[in-house]
Order: sequence, then C-alpha cells, then structure tokens
Amino acid sequence: MTVTDIATRTYNHNFRLDPIVRSLLDTDFYKLLMLQMIRHIHPDVEATFSVINRTRSVRLADIIDEEELRAQLDHAREVRFAKKELIWLTGNSFYGRQQMFSPEFIAWLADFRLPDYRLRKVDGQYELCFEGPWTHTTMWEIPALAILNELKSRAAMRNKGRFALDILYARAKTRLWEKVERLKLLPDLVLSDFGTRRRHGFLWQRWCVEALKEGLSDRFIGTSNVLLAMDSDLEAIGTNAHELPMVTAALAGDDASLARAPYQVLEAWRRHYNGNLLIALPDAFGTTAFLRDAPGWLADWTGFRPDSAPPIEGGEQIIRWWQDQGVDPRTRLLIFSDGMDVDTIEATYRHFNGRVRTSFGWGTNLTNDFRGCDPDGDEGLEPISLVCKVTSANGRPAVKLSDNPAKATGDPAEIERYLRVFGSAGHAPSPVVV
Amino acid sequence: MTVTDIATRTYNHNFRLDPIVRSLLDTDFYKLLMLQMIRHIHPDVEATFSVINRTRSVRLADIIDEEELRAQLDHAREVRFAKKELIWLTGNSFYGRQQMFSPEFIAWLADFRLPDYRLRKVDGQYELCFEGPWTHTTMWEIPALAILNELKSRAAMRNKGRFALDILYARAKTRLWEKVERLKLLPDLVLSDFGTRRRHGFLWQRWCVEALKEGLSDRFIGTSNVLLAMDSDLEAIGTNAHELPMVTAALAGDDASLARAPYQVLEAWRRHYNGNLLIALPDAFGTTAFLRDAPGWLADWTGFRPDSAPPIEGGEQIIRWWQDQGVDPRTRLLIFSDGMDVDTIEATYRHFNGRVRTSFGWGTNLTNDFRGCDPDGDEGLEPISLVCKVTSANGRPAVKLSDNPAKATGDPAEIERYLRVFGSAGHAPSPVVV
Repeated sequence: MTVTDIATRTYNHNFRLDPIVRSLLDTDFYKLLMLQMIRHIHPDVEATFSVINRTRSVRLADIIDEEELRAQLDHAREVRFAKKELIWLTGNSFYGRQQMFSPEFIAWLADFRLPDYRLRKVDGQYELCFEGPWTHTTMWEIPALAILNELKSRAAMRNKGRFALDILYARAKTRLWEKVERLKLLPDLVLSDFGTRRRHGFLWQRWCVEALKEGLSDRFIGTSNVLLAMDSDLEAIGTNAHELPMVTAALAGDDASLARAPYQVLEAWRRHYNGNLLIALPDAFGTTAFLRDAPGWLADWTGFRPDSAPPIEGGEQIIRWWQDQGVDPRTRLLIFSDGMDVDTIEATYRHFNGRVRTSFGWGTNLTNDFRGCDPDGDEGLEPISLVCKVTSANGRPAVKLSDNPAKATGDPAEIERYLRVFGSAGHAPSPVVV
Repeated sequence: MTVTDIATRTYNHNFRLDPIVRSLLDTDFYKLLMLQMIRHIHPDVEATFSVINRTRSVRLADIIDEEELRAQLDHAREVRFAKKELIWLTGNSFYGRQQMFSPEFIAWLADFRLPDYRLRKVDGQYELCFEGPWTHTTMWEIPALAILNELKSRAAMRNKGRFALDILYARAKTRLWEKVERLKLLPDLVLSDFGTRRRHGFLWQRWCVEALKEGLSDRFIGTSNVLLAMDSDLEAIGTNAHELPMVTAALAGDDASLARAPYQVLEAWRRHYNGNLLIALPDAFGTTAFLRDAPGWLADWTGFRPDSAPPIEGGEQIIRWWQDQGVDPRTRLLIFSDGMDVDTIEATYRHFNGRVRTSFGWGTNLTNDFRGCDPDGDEGLEPISLVCKVTSANGRPAVKLSDNPAKATGDPAEIERYLRVFGSAGHAPSPVVV
C-alpha cells in the first residue's frame, strides 16, 4: 500500500513562493552587535549598501529571474522578529555575558523591518542597493546576499532530474565529510561557521552546521548565523565588520580625522561593549598602515581578524607587532576568515600552532562547495564572489582598501585619497575567488 | 509552520515488521525459468536447499536475532503471486519471445507458496534449510539470502544515528556513481544487475538499478530481479543455474551417467525452451572436464557463463574450445558474473573487446558495496559470501566442484567420487570474498 499525504503533495505542487529568508535572525551575529552600537552612536547617519558581484563573468541578471528576486526581497521585508526570537536574544548569553542586548534595543527590534530596495538590471548584472538610515540598511547585507546566492543555486538546479540532484547532494555531503575527517586530525582546532551570506541554500547550511557539530564536537565553537545558533543550541559567533571603520572614515571631515577614524571606531566599540568583544579588523585600509599607527591600548585587545592578507603572512605581521608592543602572542587570538578551506585551515593551523591562539571562520567553502559535484558536469553551482558593501554615508563615498587591491571598493578618486592618507605599504594583489 | 503527517509518523513508530520480501517476483528470473522446466521434467524430485555462510568469521547467529529472522521467513511464506504479477509474466516478452511461460504454469504459480523451513543455531551460525519438492524448495534460494543479508545490514545500522546514516548512504551513492562514470567510458559495455541475493537491502538495490539505468542507458540491459524488471520496465535477465546439473548429477545412477549428466540437462533445457535461452554454465564440476567431453552441438549455443574461474583465463579457455570446434568466437557470448567489480569488468571488457561478445552480471559489488562508507569505521556492512545451495536430491547428496575448490559444496566422500569421474584439471583455489 502506497500512502501519500495528499495535503502536503498538493501544497508542494501549488505553493507560490519558497521563501529564502524566513526569520530576521537568519543573519550574521555581528550585524546585531554592530546595529546596537550604530543605533547608540549614529542613529541619524544615512548609509547606502550596494550589492557588488566581483565575478563579472557570471551574469546574474541572465540567471536569476527578476520577478523571483523581487518576490524574495519583498517577502524578506514582511518578516518581523518573532517574540520567541527576541526573548532568546534577551535571555541567552553571548561570549559568556548575560544581557548583551539592552531591553530598549530589543524593544526597538520588535518593530524593525527591512527598508525598501532599488533594483535594476545593468549589463547582465543586478544593481541592487539599499538607501536610508544606517540602522536599517545595514540589516540588508546578509539577507540580500543569501537571497541572490540561493536563487542562483535554484536556477542552476531547475532543470535537473530527481536522480542528478540525488547524486549532487550525495557528493557534496561526502565531500564535506571528507573535510570534517581531515579537520578532526587537528586536536586544538577552533572553528566556526561563517557561511550564511554565500551559502548554497538555507537547508544546506543547516546540514553543514549539523555536520560540523557531529564531526568536530567542541572544536566547532558555533555559527555566525543567529537563527541556527538559536535552533541548534550553538554559540553565536562574530563581533564587528568593515562597515564600522568605512562609515567612520567616510564621515571624517579631513585627512587628519580620516587617519584617526580606524582607531576612533574601535575605541567607541570598546566603550559600547564595556571592554568585551575586543576583536579588531586590521585591514579595512591596509594592515601595514593600521599597525604602524595603532595606539598602544590595542595590544591589550583579545586579538585580530586579518581578512584579506594571505593568512600566514598576515598573521606573522600581527605577531611581530604584538612582540614590538611587548605582548606574548600566545595570550592573543587570530581569527582567519578570508576564503578559508580545509587546505589553508590545516596549513595556517600548523604554522601558528603553539605560537598564538587561532580560530577559523569558515565561509563559502563550507556552505557552498559544490565544485565538481554536478553529475551533468554543469558549473552553475560554482560559488561567486558576491558582496554587499556600504558605498556611502551621509552622501559621502565610503571606501575599502583592504590588503588585497582586488577587494578594494569605492569611488576611484576617493580610493586615491585614502591611499594618500594610509599609504599602500603591504598591499599585494591576489585573485578573489570567493 | 511545521506540518507532520501524524498518521504516517504514528505508523512508522508502531509497525511490527518491515517485510523484506513483499513479492514472490522479488527473485532472480532464472529461478522462474528453471522452475518451469523442473515442474515439467522432475515434478516429483525432492530437493533440499541449505544456506551456507562461507565467511565463517562473521557469526550470523550472533548478529541476527532469531525471532526477527523467523518473522521475516514466516512473512515470506504468506506472500502469494499477485494477479498483476501473473498477468505481467504472461503478457511480457522475455529475450524477445512472447509467452515464455505456459498458461498452465502461470495457473500453478497462482497457488504457489514457499514451503516450510528448518532453522537452528549451531556454533554462531544459522543452519537454515528447506526440504520438500524441488518445485518448491528451489524458490527459497533468493528470498532466504536476501532476508539474511538485509537483516545483517539492519543489525549493523541499528545503533547508528540519523547523521551517520546520512553520511553512510551519501558515500555509498557517491561510490556507486564513480563506478558508473568509469563504466560509461566502455562504449560497447553490456551490463546487468545480478545483485538481488547479496543486496544490502531492497530499497538500496532499487536505487542501484535506477543509477545504472540513468548512467548507462542502453548499455544497462536489465536486471535479474523480476520485480524490479516489472516495476522499472527493464528486461528480466538470466537463464539457468548450477542446481540443474547438480540435481541431475545427484540423481545419476552410476559413474557413467554422472559423467553424462551435465550435457543431458542442457539438452533437456534446449528442448524445453525450443532452442532459446542457450547459455550454459561450464563450471559446475570444472570447466576443463566439461569442455573436454562436451558434445559438438554445444558449440552452436549462444554462449557460456563462466562463474568460478578467473574471468580472463576462463574466457580464453572457452574461446580456444570454440576455435577447436571451428566456431568464430565473435559470434558467441561470454557472460561474466563471479564477484565482478568495476576493475575486473574494465579489465575483462578490454581484454576480450572485439574478440568475443561479452556481458557482465554485476552482483554483490553493485548492490552491497559499503566498504569504508561507515563514518564510525564499523565493518558490520562488509558483504559476506552467503550461498543457498541444493544439498541433496531424492535423498542423494548433491555436489558442486566448480573451478575454484574454495567454492565446492557437498559431502566430502561424494566430492571425492565426482573428482574421480570428472578429474580436477584446471581447478585452482582462489579466496572467495563475495
């Protein structure tokens, strides 16, 4: 006797939309931490975020249907924080601290919704941007990227048969488990999932997170995805991102305050979180310049998240700086999160093991590695380098230099100015794959 | 909103038995072809079939619960041919011939049920045998083996978590698809599924068959499993097995008629099927002896299924015999089915390509290759060499010598006698893995 759940089957063949973003917690934890500070310090700053596809060869607007994209973006705008989500944010501890979020902030979140978007097609790409208060536009970064990446995945799989999909996922699972088995061999590994924005899809990210939990147990310390952290009783991981120094720099009146901006924002961060969450991004305008002019108090921070230099060189540079400051690197933390995969995690782990504490934020190559998994040999599931960056603040252009000029964003004239102020020492171009 | 089909979930957590054999067509096609002839020629012969586990190191009676085994065997005895199955046997063509089964035989099948069994535990193994008319006991071979193998799989997976099972099957699917991709490179491959008896489980065999259909299209010519052939619109593949010469030999009155038995049964076969299905097993009592004394008319047959000699040597020996008979081997067929896997299929295919037609019956290594797939590293899913052989006919011991003494079965004194009659030329021991 074959039993079919007729209601489910009928629904499955009739539903109008399979929403990609179903919760406002389906975002990176650092967005919430930053948002709380932005609301406190810059409630009136206007900031524009823009989606940029660095993989120009992939013509997203030819792949993703505009109507579908609009339907997903519109749906995300309907989503509100659920009561249980706000209760969890209030009652849960983060990095061992209770009440990371103030009651007043939580109350404000209750009414939060994503602001409007502007979308148009230009030369095979989508121009997608979000204009308005920084307190609102910042929250589009992760859902916008997750929506675009998952729609791209769905498009690549649209015409695949049941069997091809079965092989595809069997291979991807096998592949990830091979990676897990290699990572198991690193006894002091500290790893977290940073793969929300570039994920193949939500369900796949959830599977990947379950795989890490199952395979690495306490070496897997958590996920940047707040929803998955809540649902799977994992730690929510993350502190801050480039948008903080970028907006602060954009708002700086002159070159002298521009030069001070990267440190000024970190001081504000330290004050706002009472000396917790002391991880600094050194590379917004180049790590060499950042360390050269860094104030002594930064050496007391927990550590750095080098995010664009090659991991070993970037780490060594920071270790030398700590040593120059008279600090023992073994008491400090380096978090590597730039395009890591199992090879680079192993190499970086082995290189630094015993010399400095390390932690790895594993992103695209965790949650979107389907390379070679398609039994038809199609390449539509190859990950692309899609970002959503702040491009202006209060009408002034925002710039990122990074250690890798290929990751620089912003108006060319303004980039010139930043290069004049910070210099280009230590910048080295390297291809950006993911 | 989470939707649960409550009826299904309740059933899933309450059902008493997950039956392994749900159809009497879930057997090898050759059993039905042989049965029709047995009924015609030997309706009164009593034949005992016994299960033999050649992999003594695996103590099946310690692994498989006796009560569960009895429940499955008892359930199989309740199963009858369904009306639609008999209609399909009647209306379908096999090897291009209509009405392979007579109306009288089909009518007889309508009342068929599997006969009783005898089961006891001896030294960590099950003694399982089937006594009664050959027309009934013969039909136990495949379901008995399928039941034991699937119960062994279930026992190995009983304590595995949801996630470990997910990885296990992802790996097994990935593994099989790698094999398919290798086999795709052989342009004139002719392959069929012979994996019913040793399968990991029914659903897995069905998946494997779907994989071959999807990946090899018309190079996959069909399956020995009649149920899968019917349900998936594939050709049912198979002709005859060792039990025919073994019983004929056991019934032979003296050494002279014993020596004639292997040819006598083939003559009966040819007559019974009007010159169709002309594939001979040469190795029941050793291929060298068989070919040495073979009558000239055998050279007119379609081909041979060498089933215990190493494939290349066994094939070459038969090719030489054809040449001695003045027959062009390119007009003849060799079917290889003894423990084949992708390496041996490739090597055998390449060796004979263009010199003789070849076909491969892929069994255990198709439907039960989970070696190294268990994420916990357990070996409970390694396949074993389990057979169900005719051990006596009308009270006289039945013997198989085979080209590989490790595959010989029967009473030692009787084996001595057979060796005296047929000789042991060409016999070469080789480990039996599956």
